[in-house]
Amino acid sequence: MKEGVKKISGKAGLPPGTLVHIGEKKSEKVRITVMEYNEGECRERDIASLNEYIPSQDKSTITWINIDGLHQMDVIETIGRLFHLHPLTLEDIVNTGQNPKLEDYRDYLFIVLKMLYYHEQKNFIESEQVSLCLYSNVVISFQEEPGKDLFDPVRERIKSGKGRISKMGADYLTYSLIDAVVDSYFIILEKLGEKITVLEEKVMSEPTQKFLHEIHAMKREMIFLRKSIWPLREVVRSLERGDSLLIQDSVHIYLRDVYDHTIRIIETIETFRDILSSILDIYLSSVSNRINAVMKVLTIIATIFMPLTFIAGVYGMNFRHMPELEWRWGYPLILLGMASLGISMLVFFRRKKWL
Amino acid sequence: MKEGVKKISGKAGLPPGTLVHIGEKKSEKVRITVMEYNEGECRERDIASLNEYIPSQDKSTITWINIDGLHQMDVIETIGRLFHLHPLTLEDIVNTGQNPKLEDYRDYLFIVLKMLYYHEQKNFIESEQVSLCLYSNVVISFQEEPGKDLFDPVRERIKSGKGRISKMGADYLTYSLIDAVVDSYFIILEKLGEKITVLEEKVMSEPTQKFLHEIHAMKREMIFLRKSIWPLREVVRSLERGDSLLIQDSVHIYLRDVYDHTIRIIETIETFRDILSSILDIYLSSVSNRINAVMKVLTIIATIFMPLTFIAGVYGMNFRHMPELEWRWGYPLILLGMASLGISMLVFFRRKKWL
Amino acid sequence: MKEGVKKISGKAGLPPGTLVHIGEKKSEKVRITVMEYNEGECRERDIASLNEYIPSQDKSTITWINIDGLHQMDVIETIGRLFHLHPLTLEDIVNTGQNPKLEDYRDYLFIVLKMLYYHEQKNFIESEQVSLCLYSNVVISFQEEPGKDLFDPVRERIKSGKGRISKMGADYLTYSLIDAVVDSYFIILEKLGEKITVLEEKVMSEPTQKFLHEIHAMKREMIFLRKSIWPLREVVRSLERGDSLLIQDSVHIYLRDVYDHTIRIIETIETFRDILSSILDIYLSSVSNRINAVMKVLTIIATIFMPLTFIAGVYGMNFRHMPELEWRWGYPLILLGMASLGISMLVFFRRKKWL
Amino acid sequence: MKEGVKKISGKAGLPPGTLVHIGEKKSEKVRITVMEYNEGECRERDIASLNEYIPSQDKSTITWINIDGLHQMDVIETIGRLFHLHPLTLEDIVNTGQNPKLEDYRDYLFIVLKMLYYHEQKNFIESEQVSLCLYSNVVISFQEEPGKDLFDPVRERIKSGKGRISKMGADYLTYSLIDAVVDSYFIILEKLGEKITVLEEKVMSEPTQKFLHEIHAMKREMIFLRKSIWPLREVVRSLERGDSLLIQDSVHIYLRDVYDHTIRIIETIETFRDILSSILDIYLSSVSNRINAVMKVLTIIATIFMPLTFIAGVYGMNFRHMPELEWRWGYPLILLGMASLGISMLVFFRRKKWL
Amino acid sequence: MKEGVKKISGKAGLPPGTLVHIGEKKSEKVRITVMEYNEGECRERDIASLNEYIPSQDKSTITWINIDGLHQMDVIETIGRLFHLHPLTLEDIVNTGQNPKLEDYRDYLFIVLKMLYYHEQKNFIESEQVSLCLYSNVVISFQEEPGKDLFDPVRERIKSGKGRISKMGADYLTYSLIDAVVDSYFIILEKLGEKITVLEEKVMSEPTQKFLHEIHAMKREMIFLRKSIWPLREVVRSLERGDSLLIQDSVHIYLRDVYDHTIRIIETIETFRDILSSILDIYLSSVSNRINAVMKVLTIIATIFMPLTFIAGVYGMNFRHMPELEWRWGYPLILLGMASLGISMLVFFRRKKWL
Repeated sequence: MKEGVKKISGKAGLPPGTLVHIGEKKSEKVRITVMEYNEGECRERDIASLNEYIPSQDKSTITWINIDGLHQMDVIETIGRLFHLHPLTLEDIVNTGQNPKLEDYRDYLFIVLKMLYYHEQKNFIESEQVSLCLYSNVVISFQEEPGKDLFDPVRERIKSGKGRISKMGADYLTYSLIDAVVDSYFIILEKLGEKITVLEEKVMSEPTQKFLHEIHAMKREMIFLRKSIWPLREVVRSLERGDSLLIQDSVHIYLRDVYDHTIRIIETIETFRDILSSILDIYLSSVSNRINAVMKVLTIIATIFMPLTFIAGVYGMNFRHMPELEWRWGYPLILLGMASLGISMLVFFRRKKWL
Repeated sequence: MKEGVKKISGKAGLPPGTLVHIGEKKSEKVRITVMEYNEGECRERDIASLNEYIPSQDKSTITWINIDGLHQMDVIETIGRLFHLHPLTLEDIVNTGQNPKLEDYRDYLFIVLKMLYYHEQKNFIESEQVSLCLYSNVVISFQEEPGKDLFDPVRERIKSGKGRISKMGADYLTYSLIDAVVDSYFIILEKLGEKITVLEEKVMSEPTQKFLHEIHAMKREMIFLRKSIWPLREVVRSLERGDSLLIQDSVHIYLRDVYDHTIRIIETIETFRDILSSILDIYLSSVSNRINAVMKVLTIIATIFMPLTFIAGVYGMNFRHMPELEWRWGYPLILLGMASLGISMLVFFRRKKWL
Repeated sequence: MKEGVKKISGKAGLPPGTLVHIGEKKSEKVRITVMEYNEGECRERDIASLNEYIPSQDKSTITWINIDGLHQMDVIETIGRLFHLHPLTLEDIVNTGQNPKLEDYRDYLFIVLKMLYYHEQKNFIESEQVSLCLYSNVVISFQEEPGKDLFDPVRERIKSGKGRISKMGADYLTYSLIDAVVDSYFIILEKLGEKITVLEEKVMSEPTQKFLHEIHAMKREMIFLRKSIWPLREVVRSLERGDSLLIQDSVHIYLRDVYDHTIRIIETIETFRDILSSILDIYLSSVSNRINAVMKVLTIIATIFMPLTFIAGVYGMNFRHMPELEWRWGYPLILLGMASLGISMLVFFRRKKWL
Repeated sequence: MKEGVKKISGKAGLPPGTLVHIGEKKSEKVRITVMEYNEGECRERDIASLNEYIPSQDKSTITWINIDGLHQMDVIETIGRLFHLHPLTLEDIVNTGQNPKLEDYRDYLFIVLKMLYYHEQKNFIESEQVSLCLYSNVVISFQEEPGKDLFDPVRERIKSGKGRISKMGADYLTYSLIDAVVDSYFIILEKLGEKITVLEEKVMSEPTQKFLHEIHAMKREMIFLRKSIWPLREVVRSLERGDSLLIQDSVHIYLRDVYDHTIRIIETIETFRDILSSILDIYLSSVSNRINAVMKVLTIIATIFMPLTFIAGVYGMNFRHMPELEWRWGYPLILLGMASLGISMLVFFRRKKWL
Repeated sequence: MKEGVKKISGKAGLPPGTLVHIGEKKSEKVRITVMEYNEGECRERDIASLNEYIPSQDKSTITWINIDGLHQMDVIETIGRLFHLHPLTLEDIVNTGQNPKLEDYRDYLFIVLKMLYYHEQKNFIESEQVSLCLYSNVVISFQEEPGKDLFDPVRERIKSGKGRISKMGADYLTYSLIDAVVDSYFIILEKLGEKITVLEEKVMSEPTQKFLHEIHAMKREMIFLRKSIWPLREVVRSLERGDSLLIQDSVHIYLRDVYDHTIRIIETIETFRDILSSILDIYLSSVSNRINAVMKVLTIIATIFMPLTFIAGVYGMNFRHMPELEWRWGYPLILLGMASLGISMLVFFRRKKWL
């Protein structure tokens, strides 16, 4: 979450609507993909510049423009001019520290989502901002990086021409993209769930300091996840209940389904938090238990040997008149006495269940 | 809860409405039972395929179709076609990781419930999804597994022809099925309540590490229960307050009763959570208390024997000129002195209430 | 709270509206008292059976029927028939595991309350269900047990003919009964408040394991109380704000007063919970403090006597050439050295504020 | 808070509206002050009995009747009769265990407030109930005790004839009285804030058991304050937003200001609670830290002297054949060896940062 | 937060609307800057007194009057008279202990904000109150101190004549000022985030008492920040959703953006609080872990040397008949025995993973 803060603080003082990309500068060109489809056919092409783009005149054709890369301000500005995007929209697209949100600008709906990827090696959740602009029959999607793409299955479905997607409008396409993002959260949750289960078992069997840091790291991941996903709930709810004319009635039922999924995701995150707290409790009381166990060992040793050492000390005294020292069986007797004292201590500790 | 996550993640990327059953594959056939009844008579039969099914023409006859088993996609699809079920409904029926929910599709109400069974041996709560579709005089219920059935008492009541159920409509039948599921929760809560009481007494009398894991397991069960039951509250409330024409006024009063029951169940779960937290507090402070007790034993032993051993050490020194060593009564005197020192220590500890 | 669960679970599977009394079976007969009064006069009598009961024809006469004992199903059923009580109402009357609730059945209002008694000896809060049915000029009250009765003061006021009660309607009588129940809660809270104050002082002065269990028991009582009283708030609020024609405007002002009382009771319970948590904190940190104190004693003893014993040990060695041993003042000097070492240790500990 | 409970429980069973004063009985007479003023002039007098009181006929004159002392029931009843106060109002005036509340009786508004005084010596917050009845041009205020009076500044402002108060109505006078009470809370919060800061510094520099009890006492004071002030928020909000005709529009703006103040007070209380929790955390972990420090001393002492004592013990053995004992430099060598062992231990502990 | 309390308590008893400046008295004069601009031109000047100020007759000209310093009551009163500010507004302007708030006085909107500065050296967040009065084409801003100014970038943008600000109205100017304040919060959060990360790493690597105080200080800063920023959320929301005619539709979209920012800031603060709690948990359990580690060292030392010292003690006894003492190899044998006992202890501890 520090990220989002840093990003914005870098532009404090600038007028609203200033385009400041806050990611790494890259040399590679932004990739623009245009997909035009209707029930019958589907055309997909990469274009070098949006100046080449001629909008389809056919009202029944849905156009999906996907931009991979936000580091070329001129590309973003061209799109802004072509599609009359509000300056604040453009600012939010490039300033990728946004939380998920929905904004209704009459002509178009502006939706910000977070794509999350789980780095298996680094044990780390990475976040990428996706911005969607929904017009009556155009959808524009902005991603930070090419390559990693959750939208490929959607593309496949459009190209295959099968299924509902090619028969329905831009609103259904938007729904499909949101659905793809939300579905990907389940995969992350599943992985986190496995990590928690492993952690739980390890802490149960052998609690060490190392797990404390792991629990803390998991907690931070949960805080991060929750912050990324929580506002999504309201976004989907507004889309479903909202009265934007850009969303048709037939799509509401699908959005309700996505809404259910976000609810389940949020509940799962809360559940994970609860379980992590419970694991921390176990860890902490395990430490107490081990202190207790160590203390017992110490006490047993001390309780057995202190009296014995004392007795040995007594008979090590140099008094002239110590009759026991002269006895024939003094030494064996005292050894016997010591042994029986030691053994009765052990019996006592066993009774107290310390052994 | 991990279950629900895994189930959905397996279908990420597929178009919405895809039927993917996520339970175990079974070889046995799906069992379809049709029950037709009105005030006068009741007919029950198993049918091999829904193609055989001819709907009753009599408007006053209520039809209850129960499907046991969700692993045959063709059966589900046939029902979907026959009763014009929405693809998302079919998806939710077979994808059994849903939370309880209510969806109004105009023609029918779609209700998802969770049947919970308590495995006495495994000490484990198992969950099975029940989906209900309520039409004006047809109710379709889908269960994951045959065998275990909470609905038998409802069946008996219909067959006996006695009672209110045979005089009333499909909405009352739906209510009866929900009521049967909710009633079964009380049985589970009763068993959990007994386990908690036993746990409480054990922790009070002799706190050991083992109980810590048991408290943790109970907490997880509570988290699971709450997640399964909490959304039910809203489902029943919506049914009761909702303005669906499929629910008649006379049934609202019964739904209000079920609503009261769900409230009581949720409150009981919260109460159990509170008590478990309190038991954990007791456990933790018992451990502290025992550390304290062990420390006291150690301190008493050390405080008594260290000075005594020191005195013995002094008279074990080999100085040439130690007049006490030559005294006739030196040894008995020093023994007496040690005894009185030891006894005064014990008196001191008793005063301090350490003994 | 386990009680309420067990009660209901015993009737899982039965049709709604089945009368199953879940208390102990008793041999004594149910006692039915009928009280008819108006501004001028008041008639009270016990009747053997409700079949004897002839309703008053005088519209201005208020009739209060009180039933003590719910174990005779025929009595309950007769009342149900006579006064057209809904089957669910009858079920709730005999199934005494209900939470406080208000249900509006048009003809009558059904109110469930909990009377609480504090067993001084057993240190235990007992609960009894009171069900009220309010008609336009009849009030029927159901109690589980005869004997213990909070309603006697109300009876006295009616009989004396003085005060507002004999001039007003059945709604005011209902208010008076609720008020009597709510007032009794204050007595219980007062007793609990005294117990908490005593506990607080004891824990402050001498924290022992025993108080831990007492705090836990008090916490459970708070959980129980809260569960019994919390829903009452909503009941009284609904009565006050509700639009039932059975409650006249002039009575609303009195119900608002009861509502204020329930709010104060709930707040007091929350306050008690807060104080109990704070007492538990004190207890726990007292235990830590005592561990600390015990540790200090141990450390002081060890720190003083270990070096001294070591010195004694050195001069107990049997080396042939140890010049100190031969000195004339070796022994007194070494004793002096040990004493000054011991004293400087004590001074050190006093400086460190350990003594 | 026990107070409020006790007060009410003493009158359980009595009919509503019974006047039972629950404070100490006093011999001194109740003091009644009548202040009549309008823009031009102001007349203030003490009257012996309200029977003497003749209401002003001038509509533009505002009358403020202040009653100091609630122990004379006949005075309260006379006022009740003269001003047609509802019996429940009278009951609430004398039963001073009320929480702040606002009740609209059409003819008049009834407001209960809590005046709080901080006893510097006793370290204790005392509470006194103020009840206000607002008529269209009369305000009656009831206080428990004469002497301590927050209303003097208001009186001064009226008498001086300057400022807004003499130009405005009874509603503004009521606002001024509420404002005076709310302003006094800030003084108490300021004192508590200072106490908390002092406590914080003390706990930081030298945590002892005594502070634990002080933190607990502060927490209880916070619980008490919150219970006394929290409902005030709703009272002022209702006054401001309410549609009572007794409050004119021009006064709403002033009530909004008081509302802001109550919000700030409540927030400050919450802040204090947070800080107290944080101080408790510090205290508790300081205790752990000191246990740790004490343990280290013990361990250092034991680790240094146990091996040394053992070595001394070895050369104290009486074996006939121990060649070292015969060596010329055996004793100095062994002393050297012991010293170097002890020093290397100290170096080891310094490396481990235990010293 | 103590500040705000102290400020108000100083004026308890004074009539509402009394101007009491509660900051330090300063000798320097208040600085008044008037900026008049429209799309074409911009005029900025310092004026000595507001009596010199002649309002612009041009409706399209926006006037921004900025007052730096609140210690000259006559200046504030002159403004109040000139612009018909309500006495309560003036009181709130000079009494700088306000929380952020919005008040609609029909003619003008009164907005209170908090500017926050982070003192790098003092490790301290300082707060300064900014009050804004928005008229249809005039904005008046009041700051406590000259010098530190977040509004310079806004001034630059106006002077440059570029950008949206010079084309839009007083409402957009107000938005720009609020936006400047909110943006500055991100800078503070960024710094706090860095401090938390550093603290986290330090606590992880080497937990010492010092960090406890630092965590506590950070927590207090969070409490302070939250109290200063939380109400801002409601202020911006009311501006955005409000129906004041002073805010035009075209500005709502910008206010929504600020609203999003405040939400993100509040969420970040909550996140920081969560992380601080988690760090405290780590700290506390690290202390427990170290107690455990110290205990182990002690126990190992004691367990090895106590039995050995005992054995040495036994052979230091002075019994006449101890055959071992006479053996030729008695001494080497006993040394060997001791060594093997010590080594087997070490092996035992390594098995137990204590070493």
